[in-house]
This record gives sequence, structure tokens and C-alpha cells, in this order.
Amino acid sequence: MATLPSTLPEAIAEVAAEVDRCFDALLAVPADPRARLYECMRHAAMNGGKRLRPLLTIAVADLFGVARDCSATVGTAIECIHVYSLIHDDLPAMDDDDLRRGKPTAHKAFDEATAILAGDCLHALAFEVLADPDTHPDPFVRAELVLDLARASGPSGMAGGQMMDLEAEKTRFDLATVTRLQQMKTGALICAAVEAGAILGRVPPAARTGLRGYAHDLGLAFQIADDLLDAEGDAAVVGKAVGKDAEAGKETFLSLMGADRARAQCRMLVDQAQQHLHAFGAEADLLRAVASYVVERDR
Amino acid sequence: MATLPSTLPEAIAEVAAEVDRCFDALLAVPADPRARLYECMRHAAMNGGKRLRPLLTIAVADLFGVARDCSATVGTAIECIHVYSLIHDDLPAMDDDDLRRGKPTAHKAFDEATAILAGDCLHALAFEVLADPDTHPDPFVRAELVLDLARASGPSGMAGGQMMDLEAEKTRFDLATVTRLQQMKTGALICAAVEAGAILGRVPPAARTGLRGYAHDLGLAFQIADDLLDAEGDAAVVGKAVGKDAEAGKETFLSLMGADRARAQCRMLVDQAQQHLHAFGAEADLLRAVASYVVERDR
Repeated sequence: MATLPSTLPEAIAEVAAEVDRCFDALLAVPADPRARLYECMRHAAMNGGKRLRPLLTIAVADLFGVARDCSATVGTAIECIHVYSLIHDDLPAMDDDDLRRGKPTAHKAFDEATAILAGDCLHALAFEVLADPDTHPDPFVRAELVLDLARASGPSGMAGGQMMDLEAEKTRFDLATVTRLQQMKTGALICAAVEAGAILGRVPPAARTGLRGYAHDLGLAFQIADDLLDAEGDAAVVGKAVGKDAEAGKETFLSLMGADRARAQCRMLVDQAQQHLHAFGAEADLLRAVASYVVERDR
Repeated sequence: MATLPSTLPEAIAEVAAEVDRCFDALLAVPADPRARLYECMRHAAMNGGKRLRPLLTIAVADLFGVARDCSATVGTAIECIHVYSLIHDDLPAMDDDDLRRGKPTAHKAFDEATAILAGDCLHALAFEVLADPDTHPDPFVRAELVLDLARASGPSGMAGGQMMDLEAEKTRFDLATVTRLQQMKTGALICAAVEAGAILGRVPPAARTGLRGYAHDLGLAFQIADDLLDAEGDAAVVGKAVGKDAEAGKETFLSLMGADRARAQCRMLVDQAQQHLHAFGAEADLLRAVASYVVERDR
């Protein structure tokens, strides 16, 4: 298998198949009392989602000729973190959601205790996969991948953003704070996915500026689009509950800017993301298509 | 500062101070909406516990002349995993405990959502610390530390053991299954703490047999002693609720073997653990004292 197709639907389908194959191997159900735990992880992790993060990792790694086995495995590790965060965010004590990716949430399909542990296990598995010599032979690359993902998912990244999101129900945030919240909550992991592709591609940090700019603007555009979907989308199409932000009285890009300015800002960020790829030719068309998709998607 | 004192109370006090110093730096409270998250992590992580796992990492690293800064940092990363697991295990959906280390549990002192996120953040921080070049200059060592800890804490280790523990309330396990459950739930992280010391000491895997045997037997002895405390201990001294296993109808070493055989088995394992250290002289006296303490402790 060479690089991903440059058209988005084909690339998404190929990545989805790769990621499900990786999860199927990683989450083989053991014949012991942990079976239910693995069933819960499989329920949450498999057959679902756009797989945006693995797509980014594989597409960036493709730019530098990285073997697919390797980039797909690393992309799946990053998806482990995304899925664990969805499981925990959906818990009754957090967002209390019943529906995720069109299926019952993990604690609804199983129970709360199993869901908490399934999230914790996917969290550990992400780092186990990245640190495994079978994933990449160079320990420097493995250690860099771990550091990249740990920073992006911990208190200075995704989980920190989630905490700010909880506080947003109690305090009125201004646009700068909402931007920082979203850059942490969603943007950090999108940046980590792009960075992982560059790490695998042995791109020196100084040469990653364009890709980092792309990831940063893409992440922000993605979140603004998400706010628009939350306010205007159809739950049946989106695959999860909508209208929750307004209900919780939280400030969002939408509440602070209004729908028209938010939409314009989203388009501007997508343009900017694509301009960050100017050093690349047609081989980066898939990354450009990912950016365009963000403003056009309906789920 | 040279190696730890060989007498246990002095060593425990020194490790406790080191670990609290590391946590204080790692968990500096930011002046932003994440302050509450950090306060919750500090509440759960600081000023508490026997710090058995960091003590083991530092004591083993001491055998091989590892710098204290390095072993204390790595020991604190392992303690991050232990503390996160306590926070999540104490949640209402799990063991529903109000008291931990003599203080209110994290979700009682704060709230459930903050406690879940604080656990997730400590989980990510453990790997961030281990993968950080400031912790150890050699990426091979960093990647090995991450793999060691991720395997010990995920579905094949601590979290998998916790899942088996949940199932133990529904099924009657035999002694072999209870032993496997406890080896995963408690033993795996104790083994990882010892292994981390050996990794820092650049001990080749083939030469780790004695230390691994020590860790394995120590972990099992520790859990049997915990069962005895749960059945016979005083909550005020132990610092957490007691009698919970019998109440939940779970099979334990105690229910399957009876108190006398359990106590004898615990002593036998401690002897065996100490015999595994035969290759070491007086420099391993602290590790021998740790093993003896396990049968003598009252909390």
C-alpha cells in the first residue's frame, strides 16, 4: 500500500479500515474476567468516528515516505487517547451523554465502572503502543512520540481544556479564554496527530513550522465548526446530542461572535491552514482537502 | 545526598520529602481556570501514603549508583499512576469511598468531574515525566521506562486487575484467579517500580531475575497483608474504610485460606522475597526491611 488517496472520502474509508484493523488486534478479547472490559473498549473504539487524528498522522507521515504499518499504529495510539476522552467526557458526572457516534455511550451500553476503567485502559494502551519497539525501532522516535502525546493530552492540553470547559458553566469567559480553552481541549490533540507524522518523518523541529501552523489553524476551525453544528446541526446526522452548550449557558465562539462572524472566521482559518502548506506540492492535497472538509461537514 | 538510609522509618521520611518536593514542582497551581484541577491533584497526591513505590524505585536505583534527582523523579511518575488509580477507584461508581489516607477522597473534597479529570491528568503526567529528556538523557531508557509503566498500569496490569476485582463481586473466584487478580491489581505496579530502578541502573534484563523475584513476592505478600488489614484492621489507623471485601461478598486470600494460613503464606513470601536478594550485600538491607515491614505494618 502506497500513500493515502488524495480525495477525502476514499482516504477516510482507507484510514477507518486501517484503524479498525489495529484496534481489532490491540483489543482482542481475553478468555478471562476482563472480557467485559475489552468489549467496552471495542464498543467505544471500533466502527465509529471520522478518524480525523489518525488520518492526519498518516497523511503527514505519507509526505515523508513513512511505512503505513508504522503510521497507522501511531495514529491508532492517538485515537486511543481521543476515544478515552470521549468515554470519560460522556460520564454522568461530566457531560452526561447517552449517544455518541450514533451508538449508546460506553456507560450506557455497559456501566459506569466499566466505562471509567475502559477509558483508563485505552489511555495506558496509547503509551504502551508508542513505547513498543515493534511500533518503531528507534527509541528516540518512541520517546518523542510519547512526550508529544502526553503533553497534548494532560493538564496543559486536552484534559486541562476539559477542566476549563467545566468552569465555563460557572464563569463567563471572554473570546481569548474560549480560544485558549478550545486550543487545549480539541486543538492540542489535533496538533499532536500532525506532529506525530512529522516525528515519524524525521522532520527536525525547526522544519515543522508549516505543519504546526496548519495543525493549529485546522484545530481552531474544527472547533468553531463544531460549535456551529452544536447550535444548528441535526442530532440524527451529527450522531450526538446537540444544543448542549447553549443549554449549559456556556460561552462559545458562536455566543461571543455570532453565527455569521463565526462562519467567516472558520473559513479564514481554513484558508490560512492551507497557506501553511505552501512548501508542499500536490502530495499535500489530502491535507488541504481535510481543511476544506472542516467548514463543509454536517457531522 | 547519597543513598537512602538502610533503616525503614528514616528512608520512608526521606522518600516522602523527595516525592512531595517533586509533586510540588510538577503540580504548581496555574493562575487560570484550571486552578481547581491542580488543587484536586495536589490534595490527592501530596502529604500522604507510604510512598512504597517511589521508595522501591529509589532503593533499587541506589544499588547501582543512580543520581537521586533522577530516581526520585521516576519514582514520582510511578506514584502519579498509583494516585490516579486511587482517585478513580474511590469514585461512587467504583468502590464509593469517602476516606483515603485519612483525608476525604478527591470527589468528596472537590467533585466527581474534577476527580475524574485529576486522575486522567496524573495519568498523562506520569508518561510526560518519564519521556522528558530532563528526567533522563538517554531516549532508550526513557522509552523503556514508559513501556514498563504502561504495561503495568493498563489492561494487562493494574486496570485489568481492577476490572477483575469488579467481576469478583458477581462470580466466585478460586485461589488461582484471586492470585492472578492481585498480581495484576497491586503486584504489577510494585514490579514496575522495582523494574524502573533496574532500568535506571542499566541492569540488562537477563540480570534482573533476582530483583523481579523480590518484587513479585513482595507484591503478593503486600496484598495478603492488605486483606488481613481489611478484615482485622482499625479504620482510624488504616486511614480508609475496612471490612469492604467481606461486605461485597468477594473472595480474597483471607476468605479462601483463612486468617492463619494467610498470615503464614504472607511470612513465607516475605522470606522468599528476601532470599531473592542473596546476590546483594548490606547495600540491599533497606529492600529487606521493606519486605519485613509488609508483614508487620498496621496500615
